[in-house]
Amino acid sequence: MDEELRAIAWTGDTLTLIDQTVLPDRLEHLEVREVDVLVDAVRRLVVRGAPALGVAGAYGVVLAMLQAGREGWDRATLEAAVDRVREARPTAVNLAVGVDRVRPLIDAGVEAAAAEAGRVLEEDVAANRALGAHGADWILARVARRPLRILTHCNAGALATAGWGTALGVVRELHARGLVETVYVDETRPLLQGSRLTAWELAREGVPHRVQIDGAAPSTVLRGLVDVAIVGADRIAANGDTANKIGTVGVALACADAGIPFVVAAPWSTVDRATATGADIPIELRDDAEVLGRQGSRTAPAASRGFNPAFDVTPARLVDALVTESGVLEPARGRVPGA
Amino acid sequence: MDEELRAIAWTGDTLTLIDQTVLPDRLEHLEVREVDVLVDAVRRLVVRGAPALGVAGAYGVVLAMLQAGREGWDRATLEAAVDRVREARPTAVNLAVGVDRVRPLIDAGVEAAAAEAGRVLEEDVAANRALGAHGADWILARVARRPLRILTHCNAGALATAGWGTALGVVRELHARGLVETVYVDETRPLLQGSRLTAWELAREGVPHRVQIDGAAPSTVLRGLVDVAIVGADRIAANGDTANKIGTVGVALACADAGIPFVVAAPWSTVDRATATGADIPIELRDDAEVLGRQGSRTAPAASRGFNPAFDVTPARLVDALVTESGVLEPARGRVPGA
Repeated sequence: MDEELRAIAWTGDTLTLIDQTVLPDRLEHLEVREVDVLVDAVRRLVVRGAPALGVAGAYGVVLAMLQAGREGWDRATLEAAVDRVREARPTAVNLAVGVDRVRPLIDAGVEAAAAEAGRVLEEDVAANRALGAHGADWILARVARRPLRILTHCNAGALATAGWGTALGVVRELHARGLVETVYVDETRPLLQGSRLTAWELAREGVPHRVQIDGAAPSTVLRGLVDVAIVGADRIAANGDTANKIGTVGVALACADAGIPFVVAAPWSTVDRATATGADIPIELRDDAEVLGRQGSRTAPAASRGFNPAFDVTPARLVDALVTESGVLEPARGRVPGA
Repeated sequence: MDEELRAIAWTGDTLTLIDQTVLPDRLEHLEVREVDVLVDAVRRLVVRGAPALGVAGAYGVVLAMLQAGREGWDRATLEAAVDRVREARPTAVNLAVGVDRVRPLIDAGVEAAAAEAGRVLEEDVAANRALGAHGADWILARVARRPLRILTHCNAGALATAGWGTALGVVRELHARGLVETVYVDETRPLLQGSRLTAWELAREGVPHRVQIDGAAPSTVLRGLVDVAIVGADRIAANGDTANKIGTVGVALACADAGIPFVVAAPWSTVDRATATGADIPIELRDDAEVLGRQGSRTAPAASRGFNPAFDVTPARLVDALVTESGVLEPARGRVPGA
């Protein structure tokens, strides 16, 4: 295990991000000192993953304060810059939560704001550690087979958080206990966060894994090759409906059909009690070009349009466990976050 | 509509195939006169789609006979060549059915064999036409909304058949009646038959469509954006369990959950009464490289393995309609092919 993998780090006046668009080919860092560089990095998915976006949002306020000082912005300009960070992506609630944690400290000065952002970061690492243990315990109490065959979708690992990971935090915990046989990793089109990022994290820790296309996941579950599916979340409504990377609900449907647990692992900050149900969660529609080709080369005919929602919503009735740092809820059994 | 699109054609001593590996960028033809060129073309998916493979299998026997004459093969060599054609891909039953239609005519001579292969081809076009009409009628009797929003997976179009198409034959028929609003086309990783081939066929006929990633399909269905899903089949067991391109069963699970019809369109030759259930259907495992990257460029880490089944099995209980040239069965209601 490598506990040092930090996708996002603060060094005095600079936010340093691992550029997740070029992994696994290259491990490069982007040093961010300006708000609009951060906004662009968030939109391009240089930094991504709900918990990591929370940390990015928190430090985004600090960056805006520093830039305001350097460039002589008035208060309205500063607030507008903070709003741009807050709204850079619509689905992940953590981005707004991170911004809103630090924004009240603007008048208290950079040092106080940076200290609060640092707490957001450290709390996320601690939350991931705690939920990893809760998740592992819950799964081991319900699944008899040893070692476990796990399926995950997208990347909810150290790269998606301030460190350790949510869904992959549970996997890391199980691996640390010597209980992981293999992890089926959905490649996660269109941007391949599974194939590029999750596989990279698992490979560097020596966790056996196999990459499969997203469409294979339901079949892999129905064929009896999987004991439990574990995913992250970008926003969880008060009734337990869960927004996560597009492709997640197909995994959940297959788990329900096969009678194996479908587990969502996310810090409590991902629960948005102001959002009543999944129908109220805004779903980001991204550029058609992402699905009509890859890395600049188009594969679909020139006349074809695309449809590219970045997330889907898994109804609470399909979520067997919602693992948080505070414990485990069971939305499919009516134990929901808003209760 | 273009009724002239023929993925596979016979001209005296040559089997001419549209090279489906380079569409939609280029429309190129491969002229085949040797058995092992055909076997390679089948394996590389130059020609693909269960019904088209049936025609290829039929003409494969004729090609073997011609080559045996040119090269002075003995009977054992000829039979071995025919076996190589028959076993080039394991899941699609039509390939073997096509071979077995013509093989008994080896002693009757090339002219008789070629005439029988021609009948296999013409029967397939006629079957597609008939099943297109049956499928359209069945759907219109059960779905109230006009015009229809359809979802399809992979390519079961003119390119997958001797002409017209099975699943896309139904779509063509509905489009000819002016009843198609749009078609959601799953891109169909790893080889993108949806994005490359189905979108190309729909674009050239002016059918509105949108390409989406495979993982999006369950969500598109659950969000109420789809009225009916229509797919092809590579082999159908006697109990109605249906093997089709990997990713199909996720669509079927979503349709069952949402209460919309899941329709399989396939010529009766796709039903393999010698196969009792889906568990008895061999599932082709293809090269890991297909899922670990694309077109020669690897995206997954060097240390990662892949898992690449080419097909999945949709249980009969999820198949609302099995549309054939002879009429419509309803496996989910217990009306199965083997009954």
